[in-house]
Amino acid sequence: MLGRYPRSVAVVDLTEKFALFSEHWSPKVVARLNDYEIKLVKLKGEFVWHVHEDTDELFLVIEGNLTIQLRDGDVTLGPGQLYVVPRGVEHCPIAEGDVSAMLIEPEGVVNTGDAGGELTADRDDSLLDR
Amino acid sequence: MLGRYPRSVAVVDLTEKFALFSEHWSPKVVARLNDYEIKLVKLKGEFVWHVHEDTDELFLVIEGNLTIQLRDGDVTLGPGQLYVVPRGVEHCPIAEGDVSAMLIEPEGVVNTGDAGGELTADRDDSLLDR
Repeated sequence: MLGRYPRSVAVVDLTEKFALFSEHWSPKVVARLNDYEIKLVKLKGEFVWHVHEDTDELFLVIEGNLTIQLRDGDVTLGPGQLYVVPRGVEHCPIAEGDVSAMLIEPEGVVNTGDAGGELTADRDDSLLDR
Repeated sequence: MLGRYPRSVAVVDLTEKFALFSEHWSPKVVARLNDYEIKLVKLKGEFVWHVHEDTDELFLVIEGNLTIQLRDGDVTLGPGQLYVVPRGVEHCPIAEGDVSAMLIEPEGVVNTGDAGGELTADRDDSLLDR
């Protein structure tokens, strides 16, 4: 994979990056790790039930409290807590208040997975330092 | 890769996990993301110069201040700051005080890369909830 893309070489300050946007459910790529992407996202309210059939998805909560609804029970994360949604597992995030979270997943993963719909976000690397 | 290994399904609380060990330079696997591993490590003093030829390596500092020495300049990270050391780039972490950090890299990556030596740590998944 060497040379496939420009390297991120800058320090990423999570607080500074989160201060640069306010919209919800629109993950921002802030760093790359091989063919994975580190994304920051703000969440509020309920997302849509969806599944990523081909990949796990890591959630690390930075601020707020996030519930990840699963078909066999919910997981609630506070600041400094992470959870990996296994591939193939239906999930639906829900945030009562404002939540800031970091996501890690392979490049090309779409936020709404198989569900599609109006919350589907285009890939946004406008906050990626090059 | 489906079914290659048991899934991590537990919430990982970073503070709780860091409280479970004290040794330095001995990364602990706390979660898996496809064929990547999320590791927690405590750092103090200077490590060894080394390189990972085949993979990038993500450092996210949770506590303390970490300098990652590079041949063409240093990078210093405080809490909430991350940096991806590009594959093939020689680096040497140095921590003046105690540092707690999260690492993300593919499974099988050895902490000392090409350098080997006495700081080389065995893979330690004793803190991985199954």
